[in-house]
Amino acid sequence: MSQVAEGADASAPVLGPGGQSAPDRATGAAAVLIIGSGLVGASIGLALSQAGRTVHLSDAQPEIAAAAAAMGAGSVWPGGAGTNGSGPDEIGLVVVATPPAVVGRVVAEQLERFPGATVTDVGSVKGPVVAELLERGADIARYVGSHPMAGSHRAGPLAARADLFVDRTWVITPHEDEDFARTAEVERLAEACGARVVLMPVADHDVAVAQVSHLPQLVSSLVAGRLNAVPYQHLSLAGQGMRDVTRIAASDPELWAQIVALNRDAVRAELEHLATDLADLIAHLDNTTAVQRVIARGRRGVGGLPGKHGREQAAVWEAVVIEIPDRPGSLAEIFGSATRTGVNIEDVSIEHDPVREVGFLSLAVAGAEPAAHLATAMVEEGWTLRA
Amino acid sequence: MSQVAEGADASAPVLGPGGQSAPDRATGAAAVLIIGSGLVGASIGLALSQAGRTVHLSDAQPEIAAAAAAMGAGSVWPGGAGTNGSGPDEIGLVVVATPPAVVGRVVAEQLERFPGATVTDVGSVKGPVVAELLERGADIARYVGSHPMAGSHRAGPLAARADLFVDRTWVITPHEDEDFARTAEVERLAEACGARVVLMPVADHDVAVAQVSHLPQLVSSLVAGRLNAVPYQHLSLAGQGMRDVTRIAASDPELWAQIVALNRDAVRAELEHLATDLADLIAHLDNTTAVQRVIARGRRGVGGLPGKHGREQAAVWEAVVIEIPDRPGSLAEIFGSATRTGVNIEDVSIEHDPVREVGFLSLAVAGAEPAAHLATAMVEEGWTLRA
Repeated sequence: MSQVAEGADASAPVLGPGGQSAPDRATGAAAVLIIGSGLVGASIGLALSQAGRTVHLSDAQPEIAAAAAAMGAGSVWPGGAGTNGSGPDEIGLVVVATPPAVVGRVVAEQLERFPGATVTDVGSVKGPVVAELLERGADIARYVGSHPMAGSHRAGPLAARADLFVDRTWVITPHEDEDFARTAEVERLAEACGARVVLMPVADHDVAVAQVSHLPQLVSSLVAGRLNAVPYQHLSLAGQGMRDVTRIAASDPELWAQIVALNRDAVRAELEHLATDLADLIAHLDNTTAVQRVIARGRRGVGGLPGKHGREQAAVWEAVVIEIPDRPGSLAEIFGSATRTGVNIEDVSIEHDPVREVGFLSLAVAGAEPAAHLATAMVEEGWTLRA
Repeated sequence: MSQVAEGADASAPVLGPGGQSAPDRATGAAAVLIIGSGLVGASIGLALSQAGRTVHLSDAQPEIAAAAAAMGAGSVWPGGAGTNGSGPDEIGLVVVATPPAVVGRVVAEQLERFPGATVTDVGSVKGPVVAELLERGADIARYVGSHPMAGSHRAGPLAARADLFVDRTWVITPHEDEDFARTAEVERLAEACGARVVLMPVADHDVAVAQVSHLPQLVSSLVAGRLNAVPYQHLSLAGQGMRDVTRIAASDPELWAQIVALNRDAVRAELEHLATDLADLIAHLDNTTAVQRVIARGRRGVGGLPGKHGREQAAVWEAVVIEIPDRPGSLAEIFGSATRTGVNIEDVSIEHDPVREVGFLSLAVAGAEPAAHLATAMVEEGWTLRA
C-alpha cells in the first residue's frame, strides 16, 4: 500500500472533486490551517513553519491560538474557529487537532467550509471519524485520517516543540474512497514534521492502537488504581518496575475516556483476552511450570517490540565461550581480559566438557555486534574460543 | 519498630545463644561470608570490601565465586560452599544470596555450620524462610531476613557494582523470635552498602512485595504475552507507553516463577483484586464516566508513589494565574515573559472574569517550587498576578 501511495505522490494524477491544482499541492505551497492549537496542533505548526510552510492557527479558545502563534507556530486565522474567515481559497490543507470526541464533527465542518482543501486529523481513533463523515454525506474523498504517535505528559501550546514528531511513527489511514493525491499530501505533512510514515487501513489502525496503546494505558491505570488500597509504608518498597508499569497512569482521564469510548469494541476485545489470560494464570498459580511459561511468553513478546528507531531490541543475548586453561589463576586472568575489552557482560556461566575434562567460561552479551567485538578481543588477548 | 532496633543498635544488650562477643559485631569487625556470588551477592561483596570489611565468597559453582573475587568482591572461601572451610570461628555474618527457592534450606545449613554467626538472606519473600527454619528447629534467633530492593536486567558477578544499593530501599524483616542485636547488625550491613533501611514484619513484607513488585511483574508479563498475538505491522505503532509497561517482562522466567511460588497466597489475592477491577471495567466500558473514573483513580494511585529518593513525585500541577491587560498584543508579551523565565510550562488555559470583564492566563507548572519561581519572575517582568 505504501508503494501505491508513493507512486501517486510522484505523479499526483488523481484529484478529488473541487480539488486544488496538483502543482500547488505537489510543491507543498498551499497554506495549512490547524484547528486546535494545543500541544499537538501547535507542535505541527512549529514544524511546518520552520519548514517554510504558511500556517494559520485556530482554536475554540482564541487565546490558545494566540499562544501558539506567540510560540512561532503560525499566525492566528483571521476569522477564528467556527466562522468563515477571509480568503478561504488559500487553504490547501486543514489539520484537525481537537479533542478526540469532536474530531468527526469538526472534520465534516472543515470539508464543507473549504471545498477544495484536503482535511486530515491527528486523533487516536479513525473508524468513528469515517463513519460520521459517511453518515453526514461529507465529501470523504478529501479526508485522510492520520495519527502521529507522539505526545507528552505536558499539554497546551506552551509545551509545543518543533521536533515532537522527529523519528516517531505517523500512521496515515487511507480509506475505501481515498484520493491518492490527498493521501500523498498528508504523507508530505508527516514527513515535513520529521516523522516516519506508516500506511495502514482504518480498521487495522484502530485494532492496532487498541493492542499496543489503549490496552497498556488501561492496564497501567488499573494497576495504579490498586495502589490507592496499599498502605503508605508498603509503597516505600515500590521500585523501578512499579514506576515503569504505572507511568502512563498519570495520563489525562478525560482525554483517555474519550479515546476508549471511540474505540470501545476493539478495546473490549483486548481487555477480554487479557481477562482470560489473567484468569488462566490465577487458576494455575500453584503450578510453577505454568507460571514460568507465562513469564517466558511475556519475555518473548517484549523481545518482539521494534526498537525506538525501528531497530529490533537487543533482547537476545549472545554467548562468547572461552576455554579455561588448566592452570592456577587462569579464570581471574580471563575476567581481567574481558573487563579490559570494555564490553558489558550481561551474564556469566561455567560449562564443563565431561569428555575432555575441560572447563568453559560462557560470557553473555547483548547482541551480535558486542559478541563479535568481545570474541575478537579475547582471541587477541590470547584466549581460545570453543570450536 | 525502627526506633526500638536503633536503640538496640547503640547498646547491643541482647545476645543469641552461642553469640559472638558484642564489641566485635558493634565495630563491624567480624568477617562476612556471602553464599551465592551472582549479581546481588557479588555487589554486596564489592560494597563491603570497599567499606573495609573482610568478605569471603562462596557459590555452588566455585568458578562463579572466583569471578566475584576477581571483580574485587572478596576472597574465595577456602572450603567452598557446602563444606566446612577452615576457620569457621571468624565468620560473624553470613549473607545468603542464592536463588529464592533454596534460601530456606541454605539459611538453615549456615545457622548450623556457624553456631555464633548472624545469618541473613536477600531473597524476595520472607515468610517461607521463617516457616522452614521453624520446621527444621533451627536457631532462628540468629536469623534476620532482609531484602534489598535493587537489581538489574543483567546477571552474574561480572555485572556486579559496589553502588547497586546506594539510595535504594533495603527492607529488614524482624520476626517474633528476633534478637535486636542481630537485627542491628544486618541494618549496619545494609547501611554499609549505602541503602536506606526500612523495617517491616515478615508478613507485611510479603504482602507489600506482592502489591508493589510481584503484581506489576505478572501484569507486565501478561500484557507482553499478548504481543505474541499482535501482527508485526501493528507492533510498529507501539510507543513509549507500551515499552514502559512491558519493560520488566524481560525478566528471568525461572527466577520469577520461584518468587511467585514462594509468595503464592499474597500474589493470588492481588491478582484476584485486579481481575475484579478488570471485569468491572469491561462491564462498564460503555459508560464513559465510569471509564474516566478508573483512569482518574489510577492517576491518584501513581501520584501517591514515593519519588526515587523518597520524595513525593511532582504529580500535582500548580497554577500561576496572570491578569491579561486589555491592550493589543499583551498575550504574546506574557508568553514571551513566561518563556524567558526558563520554567517548564506544563499546560496553559484562559479564564474570564464575567463581572470585571477581564481575562486571566493560567500557567500550570509541576510543583510549588517552579510555581513560586515563575510567579516572582512574572511580577518582576511587570505582570499582575490574580489576587
